[in-house]
Amino acid sequence: MKFVDLIEQASRDNNSLLCVGLDPDPARFPADLAGRPDAIFEFCRAIVDATADVACSFKPQIAYFSARRAEDQLERIIAHIHEKHPGLPVILDAKRGDIGSTAELYAIEAFERYRADAVTVNPYLGRDSVEPFLAHRDKGVILLCRTSNPGGSDLQFLEVDGPSGKERLFERVARLVAGEWNQHGQCALVVGATFPNEIQRVRQLVGDMPLLVPGIGAQGGDIEATVKAGRNSGGMGLMINSSRAILYAGMQADSGEGFAEAARQVALQTRDEINRYRVG
Amino acid sequence: MKFVDLIEQASRDNNSLLCVGLDPDPARFPADLAGRPDAIFEFCRAIVDATADVACSFKPQIAYFSARRAEDQLERIIAHIHEKHPGLPVILDAKRGDIGSTAELYAIEAFERYRADAVTVNPYLGRDSVEPFLAHRDKGVILLCRTSNPGGSDLQFLEVDGPSGKERLFERVARLVAGEWNQHGQCALVVGATFPNEIQRVRQLVGDMPLLVPGIGAQGGDIEATVKAGRNSGGMGLMINSSRAILYAGMQADSGEGFAEAARQVALQTRDEINRYRVG
Repeated sequence: MKFVDLIEQASRDNNSLLCVGLDPDPARFPADLAGRPDAIFEFCRAIVDATADVACSFKPQIAYFSARRAEDQLERIIAHIHEKHPGLPVILDAKRGDIGSTAELYAIEAFERYRADAVTVNPYLGRDSVEPFLAHRDKGVILLCRTSNPGGSDLQFLEVDGPSGKERLFERVARLVAGEWNQHGQCALVVGATFPNEIQRVRQLVGDMPLLVPGIGAQGGDIEATVKAGRNSGGMGLMINSSRAILYAGMQADSGEGFAEAARQVALQTRDEINRYRVG
Repeated sequence: MKFVDLIEQASRDNNSLLCVGLDPDPARFPADLAGRPDAIFEFCRAIVDATADVACSFKPQIAYFSARRAEDQLERIIAHIHEKHPGLPVILDAKRGDIGSTAELYAIEAFERYRADAVTVNPYLGRDSVEPFLAHRDKGVILLCRTSNPGGSDLQFLEVDGPSGKERLFERVARLVAGEWNQHGQCALVVGATFPNEIQRVRQLVGDMPLLVPGIGAQGGDIEATVKAGRNSGGMGLMINSSRAILYAGMQADSGEGFAEAARQVALQTRDEINRYRVG
Protein backbone atom coordinates (compact mmCIF):
# COMPACT_ATOMS: atom_id res chain seq x y z
CA MET A 1 0.00 0.00 0.00
CA LYS A 2 1.23 3.53 -0.72
CA PHE A 3 2.44 5.52 2.28
CA VAL A 4 -0.23 8.20 2.01
CA ASP A 5 -2.96 5.54 1.99
CA LEU A 6 -1.25 3.65 4.81
CA ILE A 7 -1.14 6.74 7.02
CA GLU A 8 -4.76 7.60 6.26
CA GLN A 9 -5.88 4.04 7.02
CA ALA A 10 -3.91 3.94 10.28
CA SER A 11 -5.31 7.33 11.27
CA ARG A 12 -8.85 6.04 10.75
CA ASP A 13 -8.26 2.64 12.38
CA ASN A 14 -6.84 4.17 15.55
CA ASN A 15 -8.84 7.40 15.34
CA SER A 16 -5.52 9.17 15.74
CA LEU A 17 -3.33 11.84 14.19
CA LEU A 18 -0.61 11.23 16.77
CA CYS A 19 2.84 10.18 15.56
CA VAL A 20 4.94 8.76 18.38
CA GLY A 21 8.55 9.84 18.00
CA LEU A 22 11.21 7.35 19.06
CA ASP A 23 14.14 9.41 20.40
CA PRO A 24 15.62 6.90 22.86
CA ASP A 25 18.03 8.43 25.37
CA PRO A 26 19.65 5.79 27.60
CA ALA A 27 20.38 8.40 30.28
CA ARG A 28 16.61 8.66 30.82
CA PHE A 29 15.76 4.96 30.73
CA PRO A 30 14.25 3.29 33.80
CA ALA A 31 16.72 1.60 36.12
CA ASP A 32 15.83 -1.96 35.17
CA LEU A 33 16.97 -1.40 31.58
CA ALA A 34 20.33 0.10 32.55
CA GLY A 35 23.31 -1.86 31.37
CA ARG A 36 21.39 -4.13 29.01
CA PRO A 37 23.14 -4.29 25.65
CA ASP A 38 19.80 -4.06 23.84
CA ALA A 39 18.32 -1.45 26.19
CA ILE A 40 17.50 0.92 23.30
CA PHE A 41 15.50 -1.75 21.50
CA GLU A 42 13.76 -2.92 24.66
CA PHE A 43 12.83 0.63 25.66
CA CYS A 44 11.44 1.39 22.21
CA ARG A 45 9.60 -1.92 22.05
CA ALA A 46 7.84 -1.25 25.33
CA ILE A 47 6.82 2.22 24.12
CA VAL A 48 5.65 0.90 20.75
CA ASP A 49 3.58 -1.91 22.24
CA ALA A 50 2.01 0.43 24.80
CA THR A 51 1.02 3.11 22.28
CA ALA A 52 0.36 1.17 19.04
CA ASP A 53 -3.43 1.39 19.30
CA VAL A 54 -3.49 5.15 19.86
CA ALA A 55 -0.90 6.24 17.28
CA CYS A 56 -1.11 6.75 13.51
CA SER A 57 2.63 6.16 12.99
CA PHE A 58 6.02 5.84 14.66
CA LYS A 59 8.97 8.08 13.90
CA PRO A 60 12.39 6.81 14.98
CA GLN A 61 15.07 9.53 14.85
CA ILE A 62 18.14 7.85 13.37
CA ALA A 63 20.76 9.97 15.20
CA TYR A 64 19.63 8.53 18.53
CA PHE A 65 20.73 5.16 17.21
CA SER A 66 23.74 6.03 15.06
CA ALA A 67 25.45 8.17 17.72
CA ARG A 68 25.45 5.06 19.91
CA ARG A 69 26.46 2.49 17.31
CA ALA A 70 22.98 0.98 17.59
CA GLU A 71 21.89 0.61 13.96
CA ASP A 72 21.07 -3.03 14.65
CA GLN A 73 18.58 -1.98 17.33
CA LEU A 74 16.96 0.45 14.90
CA GLU A 75 16.56 -2.38 12.38
CA ARG A 76 15.04 -4.54 15.10
CA ILE A 77 12.52 -2.01 16.35
CA ILE A 78 11.28 -1.27 12.83
CA ALA A 79 11.00 -5.00 12.11
CA HIS A 80 9.09 -5.37 15.37
CA ILE A 81 6.62 -2.65 14.38
CA HIS A 82 6.00 -4.26 10.98
CA GLU A 83 5.57 -7.71 12.50
CA LYS A 84 3.48 -6.94 15.59
CA HIS A 85 1.63 -3.85 14.45
CA PRO A 86 1.12 -4.25 10.70
CA GLY A 87 -0.55 -1.26 9.09
CA LEU A 88 1.19 1.26 11.33
CA PRO A 89 3.67 3.13 9.13
CA VAL A 90 7.24 3.89 10.17
CA ILE A 91 8.73 7.28 9.31
CA LEU A 92 12.51 7.28 9.45
CA ASP A 93 13.53 10.75 10.58
CA ALA A 94 16.91 11.14 8.90
CA LYS A 95 16.67 14.50 7.06
CA ARG A 96 18.92 13.24 4.29
CA GLY A 97 19.89 15.35 1.29
CA ASP A 98 22.64 14.81 -1.27
CA ILE A 99 23.37 14.71 -5.00
CA GLY A 100 21.51 12.07 -7.01
CA SER A 101 24.06 9.26 -6.99
CA THR A 102 24.41 9.52 -3.21
CA ALA A 103 20.70 10.06 -2.62
CA GLU A 104 20.12 6.69 -4.30
CA LEU A 105 22.11 5.10 -1.49
CA TYR A 106 20.31 7.04 1.22
CA ALA A 107 17.03 5.79 -0.29
CA ILE A 108 18.33 2.23 -0.10
CA GLU A 109 19.37 2.85 3.51
CA ALA A 110 15.91 4.11 4.48
CA PHE A 111 13.63 1.88 2.42
CA GLU A 112 15.54 -1.37 1.95
CA ARG A 113 17.91 -1.64 4.89
CA TYR A 114 15.60 -0.15 7.53
CA ARG A 115 12.32 -0.94 5.72
CA ALA A 116 10.86 2.46 6.58
CA ASP A 117 7.59 3.47 4.94
CA ALA A 118 8.68 7.11 4.66
CA VAL A 119 11.78 9.21 5.24
CA THR A 120 12.36 12.89 5.98
CA VAL A 121 14.44 14.73 3.36
CA ASN A 122 16.07 18.17 3.26
CA PRO A 123 15.13 20.21 0.16
CA TYR A 124 18.25 22.45 -0.01
CA LEU A 125 19.83 20.47 -2.87
CA GLY A 126 16.73 20.65 -5.05
CA ARG A 127 14.70 18.32 -7.17
CA ASP A 128 17.30 15.86 -8.48
CA SER A 129 18.40 15.19 -4.91
CA VAL A 130 14.84 14.13 -4.06
CA GLU A 131 14.09 12.03 -7.13
CA PRO A 132 15.96 8.90 -6.00
CA PHE A 133 13.63 8.77 -3.00
CA LEU A 134 10.58 9.37 -5.17
CA ALA A 135 11.68 6.49 -7.41
CA HIS A 136 10.46 4.20 -4.62
CA ARG A 137 6.86 4.75 -5.63
CA ASP A 138 5.10 3.23 -2.63
CA LYS A 139 7.20 5.14 -0.13
CA GLY A 140 6.58 8.52 1.45
CA VAL A 141 9.01 11.41 1.04
CA ILE A 142 8.57 14.07 3.70
CA LEU A 143 10.34 17.32 2.84
CA LEU A 144 11.48 19.82 5.45
CA CYS A 145 9.53 23.03 4.89
CA ARG A 146 9.27 25.11 8.07
CA THR A 147 11.17 23.53 10.96
CA SER A 148 10.25 23.95 14.61
CA ASN A 149 13.58 25.32 15.88
CA PRO A 150 14.37 29.04 16.42
CA GLY A 151 17.09 29.12 13.73
CA GLY A 152 14.62 27.79 11.21
CA SER A 153 13.90 31.40 10.30
CA ASP A 154 17.50 32.13 9.23
CA LEU A 155 16.85 30.77 5.74
CA GLN A 156 13.27 29.50 5.66
CA PHE A 157 11.80 32.92 6.42
CA LEU A 158 13.74 34.84 3.79
CA GLU A 159 11.61 36.57 1.18
CA VAL A 160 11.97 35.49 -2.43
CA ASP A 161 10.09 36.56 -5.54
CA GLY A 162 6.94 34.48 -6.07
CA PRO A 163 4.39 34.37 -8.89
CA SER A 164 2.22 36.98 -7.19
CA GLY A 165 4.68 39.10 -5.25
CA LYS A 166 6.93 38.15 -2.38
CA GLU A 167 6.84 34.80 -0.64
CA ARG A 168 8.96 33.19 2.08
CA LEU A 169 11.44 30.45 1.23
CA PHE A 170 9.35 27.84 3.09
CA GLU A 171 6.34 28.85 0.96
CA ARG A 172 8.43 28.34 -2.16
CA VAL A 173 9.39 24.89 -0.88
CA ALA A 174 5.72 24.07 -0.24
CA ARG A 175 4.77 25.21 -3.75
CA LEU A 176 7.63 23.33 -5.41
CA VAL A 177 6.76 20.12 -3.61
CA ALA A 178 3.00 20.36 -4.18
CA GLY A 179 3.25 21.66 -7.74
CA GLU A 180 6.28 19.89 -9.21
CA TRP A 181 7.87 17.20 -7.04
CA ASN A 182 4.71 15.37 -5.96
CA GLN A 183 3.83 13.84 -9.32
CA HIS A 184 3.02 10.45 -7.83
CA GLY A 185 1.30 11.58 -4.64
CA GLN A 186 4.12 10.46 -2.35
CA CYS A 187 5.10 13.73 -0.71
CA ALA A 188 4.42 15.30 2.65
CA LEU A 189 5.91 18.31 4.42
CA VAL A 190 7.44 19.03 7.82
CA VAL A 191 5.96 22.13 9.42
CA GLY A 192 6.75 22.91 13.06
CA ALA A 193 3.97 23.26 15.62
CA THR A 194 5.77 26.28 17.03
CA PHE A 195 4.50 28.31 14.05
CA PRO A 196 0.71 27.87 13.61
CA ASN A 197 0.46 30.77 11.15
CA GLU A 198 2.92 29.06 8.87
CA ILE A 199 1.10 25.73 9.20
CA GLN A 200 -2.05 27.47 8.02
CA ARG A 201 -0.22 29.10 5.12
CA VAL A 202 1.29 25.77 4.06
CA ARG A 203 -2.11 24.10 4.26
CA GLN A 204 -3.48 26.77 1.89
CA LEU A 205 -0.67 26.06 -0.56
CA VAL A 206 -0.71 22.24 -0.65
CA GLY A 207 -4.35 21.16 -0.58
CA ASP A 208 -4.89 17.93 1.32
CA MET A 209 -1.23 16.83 1.42
CA PRO A 210 -0.17 15.25 4.74
CA LEU A 211 1.85 17.43 7.10
CA LEU A 212 4.25 16.05 9.69
CA VAL A 213 4.17 18.45 12.62
CA PRO A 214 6.85 18.19 15.29
CA GLY A 215 7.15 20.62 18.16
CA ILE A 216 4.26 19.93 20.52
CA GLY A 217 5.16 18.70 23.98
CA ALA A 218 8.78 19.38 24.95
CA GLN A 219 9.18 22.08 22.29
CA GLY A 220 6.09 23.98 23.45
CA GLY A 221 3.77 23.99 20.42
CA ASP A 222 0.06 24.42 21.12
CA ILE A 223 -2.20 21.52 20.10
CA GLU A 224 -5.39 23.47 19.48
CA ALA A 225 -3.65 26.03 17.29
CA THR A 226 -1.75 23.32 15.45
CA VAL A 227 -4.78 21.21 14.62
CA LYS A 228 -7.01 24.11 13.61
CA ALA A 229 -4.28 25.50 11.38
CA GLY A 230 -3.19 22.23 9.84
CA ARG A 231 -6.21 19.92 9.42
CA ASN A 232 -7.22 19.32 5.83
CA SER A 233 -10.71 19.43 4.38
CA GLY A 234 -11.52 16.02 5.86
CA GLY A 235 -10.22 16.76 9.37
CA MET A 236 -7.18 14.63 8.49
CA GLY A 237 -3.81 15.22 6.82
CA LEU A 238 -1.79 15.64 9.99
CA MET A 239 0.86 13.52 11.71
CA ILE A 240 1.41 15.41 14.93
CA ASN A 241 4.61 14.18 16.49
CA SER A 242 5.39 13.97 20.17
CA SER A 243 8.57 12.30 21.35
CA ARG A 244 10.04 13.26 24.72
CA ALA A 245 6.75 14.17 26.40
CA ILE A 246 5.52 10.63 25.76
CA LEU A 247 8.74 8.62 26.09
CA TYR A 248 9.76 10.07 29.42
CA ALA A 249 6.33 10.62 30.96
CA GLY A 250 7.19 7.96 33.50
CA MET A 251 10.64 9.21 34.46
CA GLN A 252 9.85 8.77 38.13
CA ALA A 253 8.60 5.24 37.62
CA ASP A 254 11.19 2.66 38.55
CA SER A 255 9.64 -0.46 37.03
CA GLY A 256 9.54 -1.49 33.39
CA GLU A 257 5.74 -1.56 33.44
CA GLY A 258 5.58 1.91 34.90
CA PHE A 259 7.28 3.89 32.14
CA ALA A 260 5.35 2.24 29.31
CA GLU A 261 2.01 2.70 31.03
CA ALA A 262 2.84 6.35 31.77
CA ALA A 263 3.78 6.82 28.11
CA ARG A 264 0.49 5.25 27.04
CA GLN A 265 -1.51 7.61 29.24
CA VAL A 266 0.17 10.68 27.79
CA ALA A 267 -0.21 9.34 24.25
CA LEU A 268 -3.90 8.71 24.85
CA GLN A 269 -4.46 12.18 26.30
CA THR A 270 -2.56 13.75 23.42
CA ARG A 271 -4.52 11.81 20.81
CA ASP A 272 -7.80 12.80 22.43
CA GLU A 273 -6.81 16.44 22.73
CA ILE A 274 -5.85 16.46 19.04
CA ASN A 275 -9.18 14.86 18.11
CA ARG A 276 -11.08 17.56 19.99
CA TYR A 277 -10.03 20.11 17.34
CA ARG A 278 -10.19 18.08 14.15
CA VAL A 279 -13.66 19.29 13.20
CA GLY A 280 -15.62 22.42 13.97
CA MET B 1 45.26 20.77 16.18
CA LYS B 2 42.30 22.68 14.79
CA PHE B 3 40.85 21.40 11.52
CA VAL B 4 41.66 24.55 9.54
CA ASP B 5 45.30 24.35 10.67
CA LEU B 6 45.39 20.63 10.03
CA ILE B 7 44.16 21.04 6.47
CA GLU B 8 46.61 23.87 5.79
CA GLN B 9 49.51 21.85 7.18
CA ALA B 10 48.57 18.77 5.17
CA SER B 11 48.20 20.89 2.03
CA ARG B 12 51.72 22.25 2.54
CA ASP B 13 53.28 18.91 3.52
CA ASN B 14 51.93 17.14 0.45
CA ASN B 15 51.91 20.22 -1.79
CA SER B 16 48.32 19.31 -2.53
CA LEU B 17 44.82 20.74 -2.57
CA LEU B 18 43.37 17.39 -3.62
CA CYS B 19 40.78 15.75 -1.38
CA VAL B 20 40.32 12.08 -2.22
CA GLY B 21 36.66 11.11 -1.88
CA LEU B 22 35.92 7.62 -0.62
CA ASP B 23 32.69 6.51 -2.34
CA PRO B 24 33.22 2.76 -2.34
CA ASP B 25 30.94 0.88 -4.73
CA PRO B 26 31.37 -2.91 -4.46
CA ALA B 27 29.96 -3.39 -7.97
CA ARG B 28 33.08 -1.64 -9.28
CA PHE B 29 35.67 -3.36 -7.10
CA PRO B 30 38.39 -5.50 -8.69
CA ALA B 31 37.64 -9.18 -8.90
CA ASP B 32 40.01 -10.27 -6.16
CA LEU B 33 38.06 -8.29 -3.55
CA ALA B 34 34.69 -9.72 -4.57
CA GLY B 35 32.95 -11.69 -1.87
CA ARG B 36 35.25 -10.59 0.95
CA PRO B 37 33.19 -9.50 3.97
CA ASP B 38 35.52 -6.53 4.54
CA ALA B 39 35.88 -5.66 0.84
CA ILE B 40 34.78 -2.05 1.40
CA PHE B 41 37.46 -1.50 4.02
CA GLU B 42 40.15 -3.26 2.00
CA PHE B 43 39.32 -1.29 -1.14
CA CYS B 44 39.40 2.01 0.73
CA ARG B 45 42.60 1.08 2.55
CA ALA B 46 44.39 0.35 -0.70
CA ILE B 47 43.21 3.68 -2.15
CA VAL B 48 44.20 5.58 1.00
CA ASP B 49 47.66 4.04 1.20
CA ALA B 50 48.28 4.63 -2.50
CA THR B 51 47.25 8.31 -2.43
CA ALA B 52 48.14 9.50 1.07
CA ASP B 53 51.26 11.41 0.00
CA VAL B 54 49.51 13.34 -2.77
CA ALA B 55 46.26 14.27 -0.98
CA CYS B 56 45.41 17.00 1.53
CA SER B 57 42.49 15.06 3.01
CA PHE B 58 40.15 12.10 2.64
CA LYS B 59 36.39 12.41 2.41
CA PRO B 60 34.41 9.22 3.05
CA GLN B 61 30.75 9.56 2.00
CA ILE B 62 28.73 7.90 4.78
CA ALA B 63 25.82 6.70 2.58
CA TYR B 64 28.18 4.34 0.72
CA PHE B 65 28.70 2.60 4.04
CA SER B 66 25.32 2.92 5.74
CA ALA B 67 23.32 1.68 2.73
CA ARG B 68 25.35 -1.53 2.98
CA ARG B 69 25.28 -1.98 6.74
CA ALA B 70 29.03 -1.27 6.79
CA GLU B 71 29.42 1.31 9.54
CA ASP B 72 32.11 -0.87 11.11
CA GLN B 73 34.18 -0.63 7.94
CA LEU B 74 33.81 3.15 7.96
CA GLU B 75 35.09 3.24 11.55
CA ARG B 76 38.01 1.04 10.53
CA ILE B 77 39.06 3.06 7.49
CA ILE B 78 39.03 6.31 9.47
CA ALA B 79 41.02 4.68 12.27
CA HIS B 80 43.46 3.42 9.64
CA ILE B 81 43.95 6.93 8.23
CA HIS B 82 44.59 8.38 11.69
CA GLU B 83 47.03 5.61 12.56
CA LYS B 84 48.99 5.22 9.34
CA HIS B 85 48.73 8.72 7.94
CA PRO B 86 48.62 11.06 10.93
CA GLY B 87 48.19 14.67 9.96
CA LEU B 88 45.87 13.90 7.05
CA PRO B 89 42.40 15.12 8.04
CA VAL B 90 39.24 13.09 7.50
CA ILE B 91 36.10 14.88 6.34
CA LEU B 92 32.95 12.87 6.98
CA ASP B 93 30.55 13.71 4.19
CA ALA B 94 27.19 13.26 5.89
CA LYS B 95 25.33 16.54 5.16
CA ARG B 96 23.52 16.34 8.49
CA GLY B 97 21.05 18.95 9.64
CA ASP B 98 18.51 18.82 12.47
CA ILE B 99 17.20 20.71 15.51
CA GLY B 100 19.72 21.32 18.29
CA SER B 101 19.03 18.33 20.53
CA THR B 102 19.34 15.97 17.56
CA ALA B 103 22.30 17.81 16.05
CA GLU B 104 24.18 17.14 19.31
CA LEU B 105 23.87 13.44 18.55
CA TYR B 106 24.93 13.84 14.93
CA ALA B 107 28.01 15.70 16.20
CA ILE B 108 28.77 12.79 18.53
CA GLU B 109 28.31 10.40 15.60
CA ALA B 110 30.76 12.32 13.41
CA PHE B 111 33.39 13.42 15.89
CA GLU B 112 33.35 10.79 18.65
CA ARG B 113 32.09 7.63 17.05
CA TYR B 114 33.80 8.05 13.66
CA ARG B 115 36.58 10.38 14.87
CA ALA B 116 36.23 12.61 11.82
CA ASP B 117 38.12 15.91 11.79
CA ALA B 118 35.30 17.68 9.97
CA VAL B 119 31.75 17.01 8.85
CA THR B 120 29.54 18.44 6.12
CA VAL B 121 26.32 20.09 7.38
CA ASN B 122 23.18 21.37 5.64
CA PRO B 123 22.31 25.00 6.55
CA TYR B 124 18.54 24.85 5.91
CA LEU B 125 17.66 24.62 9.63
CA GLY B 126 19.73 27.66 10.55
CA ARG B 127 22.20 28.62 13.21
CA ASP B 128 21.01 26.65 16.24
CA SER B 129 21.14 23.47 14.15
CA VAL B 130 24.83 24.12 13.46
CA GLU B 131 25.93 25.17 16.95
CA PRO B 132 26.17 21.64 18.41
CA PHE B 133 28.78 20.89 15.73
CA LEU B 134 30.60 24.15 16.43
CA ALA B 135 30.71 23.27 20.13
CA HIS B 136 33.44 20.79 19.17
CA ARG B 137 35.99 23.59 18.89
CA ASP B 138 38.82 21.71 17.20
CA LYS B 139 36.58 20.24 14.53
CA GLY B 140 35.70 21.57 11.12
CA VAL B 141 32.10 22.32 10.12
CA ILE B 142 31.64 22.49 6.37
CA LEU B 143 28.33 24.04 5.36
CA LEU B 144 26.62 23.35 2.05
CA CYS B 145 26.50 26.59 0.10
CA ARG B 146 26.29 25.99 -3.67
CA THR B 147 26.08 22.31 -4.50
CA SER B 148 27.35 20.76 -7.72
CA ASN B 149 24.12 19.10 -8.88
CA PRO B 150 21.67 20.57 -11.43
CA GLY B 151 18.82 20.89 -8.90
CA GLY B 152 21.08 22.94 -6.64
CA SER B 153 19.64 26.01 -8.34
CA ASP B 154 16.05 25.27 -7.27
CA LEU B 155 16.59 26.96 -3.90
CA GLN B 156 20.21 28.08 -3.75
CA PHE B 157 19.87 30.40 -6.73
CA LEU B 158 16.73 32.18 -5.54
CA GLU B 159 17.12 35.93 -5.04
CA VAL B 160 16.65 37.33 -1.55
CA ASP B 161 17.06 40.85 -0.22
CA GLY B 162 20.65 41.53 0.84
CA PRO B 163 22.29 44.53 2.55
CA SER B 164 23.10 46.13 -0.81
CA GLY B 165 20.35 44.93 -3.09
CA LYS B 166 19.51 41.45 -4.25
CA GLU B 167 21.64 38.41 -3.50
CA ARG B 168 21.25 34.71 -4.17
CA LEU B 169 20.38 32.32 -1.34
CA PHE B 170 23.83 30.69 -1.55
CA GLU B 171 25.42 34.14 -1.14
CA ARG B 172 23.32 34.70 1.96
CA VAL B 173 24.52 31.37 3.32
CA ALA B 174 28.13 32.36 2.61
CA ARG B 175 27.67 35.69 4.38
CA LEU B 176 25.88 34.14 7.37
CA VAL B 177 28.62 31.54 7.82
CA ALA B 178 31.52 33.97 7.36
CA GLY B 179 29.95 36.82 9.32
CA GLU B 180 28.04 35.12 12.12
CA TRP B 181 28.49 31.35 12.46
CA ASN B 182 32.29 31.20 12.14
CA GLN B 183 33.14 32.82 15.46
CA HIS B 184 35.84 30.29 16.27
CA GLY B 185 37.34 29.87 12.82
CA GLN B 186 36.01 26.35 12.31
CA CYS B 187 33.85 26.79 9.25
CA ALA B 188 34.29 25.99 5.58
CA LEU B 189 31.84 25.92 2.67
CA VAL B 190 30.88 23.47 -0.06
CA VAL B 191 30.85 25.09 -3.50
CA GLY B 192 30.51 22.89 -6.59
CA ALA B 193 33.17 22.93 -9.30
CA THR B 194 30.41 22.94 -11.89
CA PHE B 195 29.82 26.63 -11.13
CA PRO B 196 33.13 28.60 -11.27
CA ASN B 197 31.39 31.97 -11.24
CA GLU B 198 29.75 31.11 -7.97
CA ILE B 199 33.02 29.86 -6.51
CA GLN B 200 34.54 33.23 -7.31
CA ARG B 201 31.60 35.06 -5.76
CA VAL B 202 31.81 32.96 -2.59
CA ARG B 203 35.56 33.59 -2.40
CA GLN B 204 34.88 37.34 -2.51
CA LEU B 205 32.41 37.00 0.36
CA VAL B 206 34.36 34.79 2.78
CA GLY B 207 37.98 35.96 2.69
CA ASP B 208 40.46 33.12 3.13
CA MET B 209 37.98 30.54 4.44
CA PRO B 210 38.57 27.00 3.11
CA LEU B 211 36.23 25.81 0.37
CA LEU B 212 35.43 22.16 -0.27
CA VAL B 213 34.86 21.82 -3.99
CA PRO B 214 33.27 18.64 -5.33
CA GLY B 215 32.36 18.16 -8.95
CA ILE B 216 35.59 17.76 -10.89
CA GLY B 217 36.14 14.42 -12.58
CA ALA B 218 32.96 12.39 -13.02
CA GLN B 219 30.71 15.45 -12.60
CA GLY B 220 32.56 17.43 -15.26
CA GLY B 221 33.90 20.49 -13.43
CA ASP B 222 36.93 22.22 -14.97
CA ILE B 223 40.10 22.27 -12.85
CA GLU B 224 41.67 25.45 -14.22
CA ALA B 225 38.46 27.45 -13.80
CA THR B 226 37.88 26.01 -10.34
CA VAL B 227 41.33 26.81 -9.00
CA LYS B 228 41.51 30.30 -10.46
CA ALA B 229 38.07 31.12 -9.09
CA GLY B 230 38.55 29.57 -5.68
CA ARG B 231 42.15 29.99 -4.52
CA ASN B 232 42.60 32.37 -1.63
CA SER B 233 45.18 35.11 -1.29
CA GLY B 234 47.89 32.56 -0.46
CA GLY B 235 47.11 30.17 -3.32
CA MET B 236 45.49 27.90 -0.74
CA GLY B 237 42.04 27.56 0.83
CA LEU B 238 40.76 24.81 -1.44
CA MET B 239 39.98 21.15 -0.91
CA ILE B 240 39.18 19.98 -4.41
CA ASN B 241 37.43 16.65 -4.21
CA SER B 242 37.63 13.85 -6.71
CA SER B 243 36.05 10.50 -5.94
CA ARG B 244 34.99 8.24 -8.78
CA ALA B 245 37.62 9.41 -11.30
CA ILE B 246 40.34 8.33 -8.85
CA LEU B 247 38.74 5.29 -7.22
CA TYR B 248 37.79 3.57 -10.44
CA ALA B 249 40.69 4.69 -12.64
CA GLY B 250 41.83 1.09 -12.74
CA MET B 251 38.49 -0.52 -13.55
CA GLN B 252 40.11 -2.65 -16.22
CA ALA B 253 42.87 -3.80 -13.87
CA ASP B 254 42.22 -7.24 -12.46
CA SER B 255 44.83 -7.35 -9.69
CA GLY B 256 44.72 -5.63 -6.31
CA GLU B 257 47.93 -3.75 -7.09
CA GLY B 258 46.55 -2.53 -10.38
CA PHE B 259 43.58 -0.53 -9.17
CA ALA B 260 45.45 1.23 -6.37
CA GLU B 261 48.37 2.14 -8.63
CA ALA B 262 45.96 3.43 -11.28
CA ALA B 263 44.20 5.50 -8.62
CA ARG B 264 47.54 6.90 -7.50
CA GLN B 265 48.45 7.96 -11.02
CA VAL B 266 45.18 9.85 -11.49
CA ALA B 267 45.48 11.43 -8.05
CA LEU B 268 49.01 12.56 -8.84
CA GLN B 269 48.00 14.02 -12.19
CA THR B 270 45.03 15.77 -10.61
CA ARG B 271 47.14 17.23 -7.82
CA ASP B 272 49.70 18.49 -10.31
CA GLU B 273 47.08 19.98 -12.60
CA ILE B 274 45.52 21.78 -9.62
CA ASN B 275 48.95 23.11 -8.59
CA ARG B 276 49.54 24.52 -12.06
CA TYR B 277 46.84 27.14 -11.43
CA ARG B 278 47.35 27.98 -7.78
CA VAL B 279 49.44 31.08 -8.50
CA GLY B 280 49.62 33.48 -11.39
